[in-house]
Amino acid sequence: MGRKGLKTKDKHIKNLAKIVGDRSILHHKEDLLAYDCDGFTIHKYLPKAVVFPKDTQEVARLVNYCSDNGLPFLARGAGTGLSGGAIPVNGEVVISLVKMKKLLSVDYENRRAVVEPGFVNLKLTNSISDKGYYYAPDPSSQYCCTIGGNVAENAGGAHCLKYGVTTNHILGLEVVLPNGEIIEIGNNGVPDAPGYDLLGLITGSEGTLGIVTKITVRILKNPEAKQTVLAYFNDVSDGSHAVSDIISAGIVPAALEMMDKTAIEGVEAAAFPVGHPRDIEALLLIEVDGISAGIDEQISQILDVCKNRNVREVKVAQDEAERARWWANRKTGFGAMGAISPDYLVQDGVIPRSRLPEVLNRINQISEESGLRIANIFHAGDGNLHPLVLFDARIPGQTELAIAAGSACLQACADVGGTITGEHGVGIEKREEMRFVFTDEEIQAQTDIREVFNPGNLLNAGKLFPSPGRCAEVKKEIKEAAL
Amino acid sequence: MGRKGLKTKDKHIKNLAKIVGDRSILHHKEDLLAYDCDGFTIHKYLPKAVVFPKDTQEVARLVNYCSDNGLPFLARGAGTGLSGGAIPVNGEVVISLVKMKKLLSVDYENRRAVVEPGFVNLKLTNSISDKGYYYAPDPSSQYCCTIGGNVAENAGGAHCLKYGVTTNHILGLEVVLPNGEIIEIGNNGVPDAPGYDLLGLITGSEGTLGIVTKITVRILKNPEAKQTVLAYFNDVSDGSHAVSDIISAGIVPAALEMMDKTAIEGVEAAAFPVGHPRDIEALLLIEVDGISAGIDEQISQILDVCKNRNVREVKVAQDEAERARWWANRKTGFGAMGAISPDYLVQDGVIPRSRLPEVLNRINQISEESGLRIANIFHAGDGNLHPLVLFDARIPGQTELAIAAGSACLQACADVGGTITGEHGVGIEKREEMRFVFTDEEIQAQTDIREVFNPGNLLNAGKLFPSPGRCAEVKKEIKEAAL
Repeated sequence: MGRKGLKTKDKHIKNLAKIVGDRSILHHKEDLLAYDCDGFTIHKYLPKAVVFPKDTQEVARLVNYCSDNGLPFLARGAGTGLSGGAIPVNGEVVISLVKMKKLLSVDYENRRAVVEPGFVNLKLTNSISDKGYYYAPDPSSQYCCTIGGNVAENAGGAHCLKYGVTTNHILGLEVVLPNGEIIEIGNNGVPDAPGYDLLGLITGSEGTLGIVTKITVRILKNPEAKQTVLAYFNDVSDGSHAVSDIISAGIVPAALEMMDKTAIEGVEAAAFPVGHPRDIEALLLIEVDGISAGIDEQISQILDVCKNRNVREVKVAQDEAERARWWANRKTGFGAMGAISPDYLVQDGVIPRSRLPEVLNRINQISEESGLRIANIFHAGDGNLHPLVLFDARIPGQTELAIAAGSACLQACADVGGTITGEHGVGIEKREEMRFVFTDEEIQAQTDIREVFNPGNLLNAGKLFPSPGRCAEVKKEIKEAAL
Repeated sequence: MGRKGLKTKDKHIKNLAKIVGDRSILHHKEDLLAYDCDGFTIHKYLPKAVVFPKDTQEVARLVNYCSDNGLPFLARGAGTGLSGGAIPVNGEVVISLVKMKKLLSVDYENRRAVVEPGFVNLKLTNSISDKGYYYAPDPSSQYCCTIGGNVAENAGGAHCLKYGVTTNHILGLEVVLPNGEIIEIGNNGVPDAPGYDLLGLITGSEGTLGIVTKITVRILKNPEAKQTVLAYFNDVSDGSHAVSDIISAGIVPAALEMMDKTAIEGVEAAAFPVGHPRDIEALLLIEVDGISAGIDEQISQILDVCKNRNVREVKVAQDEAERARWWANRKTGFGAMGAISPDYLVQDGVIPRSRLPEVLNRINQISEESGLRIANIFHAGDGNLHPLVLFDARIPGQTELAIAAGSACLQACADVGGTITGEHGVGIEKREEMRFVFTDEEIQAQTDIREVFNPGNLLNAGKLFPSPGRCAEVKKEIKEAAL
């Protein structure tokens, strides 16, 4: 698999190769460069090696080898994560799960499917759609991200407003613990399984408690009907209030997305323009689904809300092709920023829906103070903001300025009772921002749990929490720094 | 508060009384008798004392006192639990939370309310219904059980099929840890909060990780419309298949309940008879809710399904009064067994919906083998069975026979890939049955987590897991026993 074959004197590389085979390990620098970051590209670190196990037993043997030899290691899916969770900051052995990509079984009667972690998100829906089923969590990267990665990050997506994020769709997991033990956890769809909720604990733990090797997910029956509305507003505040009004009316849209003027400039300059007017301040993309008979009533309520909030233009998708165009335009949103800025940093804060207008104002202020443009493309329905800070890394100091502006946006979210990530995770990016929302005791309770699963802290160390080590060490450092 | 006032030489009682006041402690045997069991009445143990703190600070001081003095302690709500989670098996100091019963705030705009743990479940819906809102989890004991107890047990209810169990409605918790620290956890409604899912971990941990002192819950807008169907079947298998067919049709009913012939005999002999025919083998109670325009279509699909499955009679509730009568009849189901049997033991297993006919057959066999009648009243839509083993404790050996029959029902659930509790918890009742669904490693992972929160194991010890102590000790005992 490596360009030069296995030519090395490193005994660990040789031993790891014995587990997975010579063709399933990369260790030459030029091969490793592709694994020095994930979707978060601001910091880069080379792994020691990348191994590609083909099954759970190989994963367990790799984990045992790393644990026995004190080698740091971590798991990686498609590498689309946006907070650096798969970046080998300690020169880890990267255990890539892309070869474990089988759809193992589908049980339509009980509405569940079993997949390997490297199975691509969208492939699941594609595999079951002919029977009228789909898998609900739909991160924008769903055409390439893996379900294993989705479990690690507890990924969200545009349609999670009505259907919930990944954790709401995970029914069972097989996990290789850092000591090499293989456990099966989960409730298989049971409402309230006995014992502690290990399934919820592992889901979203960002690859710090174990390596997921098999996943049982819930599948849903396709809704009978869908309708999609596009609404243009001259005023951001009108758009924000329309969001609250729709929810207050008792409607739970499948998706309720918002883009501001800068974001619209980006998506219209990118691969899938749909001809949005350039002089509007906000657009809403609203989708409702369910039983046909109920849809028209909801659409008419939504149109009324938009009119009461001074909408400039509002239209219902005339067919599936139009709906698909609107969604393609929205889903390429982050990448589209590349069309209007050399670099961008996407942030991921959450706020109570009612505070939307004031937080958007504060983000505008942060933009003015930093001198950097900030675009907003986000899941308005559940208050999950994605400020995109536009910058140029070639200009000295701009990267740091962008990071500071992103952090200030998260502080603004925390200040109104929100939090610092809605779906992208903490990774290495938002470690320090954890202090915006957790006390030392609360962080300690979490690192104590990590210690139970991952006592040597060899698995994905230095992620998720404010320090590379234990919280107590941080306190010590802070105390020493204060002396 | 105690009948005789505080007359004691016990220094611990005196010191506990200093924290809560003389009128907020019980320690005389005749007062303590009311606290020797909960809704699970087969085993009884007297507490050392019962204290009634009025706020979080008092709870923390009580916890600190107990921890510092090596006194076992546990929290208690209304005592309606069905697996013995609040029974003081070690002569605990019982911390009753019934005085902490305030509704602290309601935030309609962001759809959440904050309550103290002693606040009664149904009171929440009653407090917000005039604004058109309600709290979804509806255990049958909701008229008296507390939301704190619901959190401990991750309580379910008839309407959890569509809306999810308690954990799906908890947005934040204030918790007093066994070391007296007060932490606030939760996502405040955020789709995917940063860090480990402590909220999910504490919810359903059956009072073994901490004492919940404040709860932020999600509230929902009342559905625009509801309709309820009652269907009578001559054949249990037809009724079971109708359950699967309704779900397969893509309908997600708000509730989908089933009762068998023995259960019907009970409810018709109890407080709220509705005139069900006595010679049918099964009835289904099905409720759909949502937008008015969609309801009629769903009802007509449900009626079609029932007809295709040879329904003997099927009817739609003509008004709210009729609907309320049907539900009162169903919700008093467990207690109704008292009308046809001196004693009953309710079990709580879960199975994949598709295995319903075969497991009901197996339960029939268990009934024949044990010579005890078993009634079934259950949440068929999510495969959550409630076999009610009818017995007479006055007949020597019948209690043990009933316990064995109940355990055999759980084994039957586990055998088809189900599990041993859907909503009642493990408590002291199903500790050994945990082995039906968890390996030693999986139990160890959980007791290790308990150790993090509850290192001295003074809080509610001997619950939830197969041994009074750590799993390793059990292994040792088993090993020694085998020698």
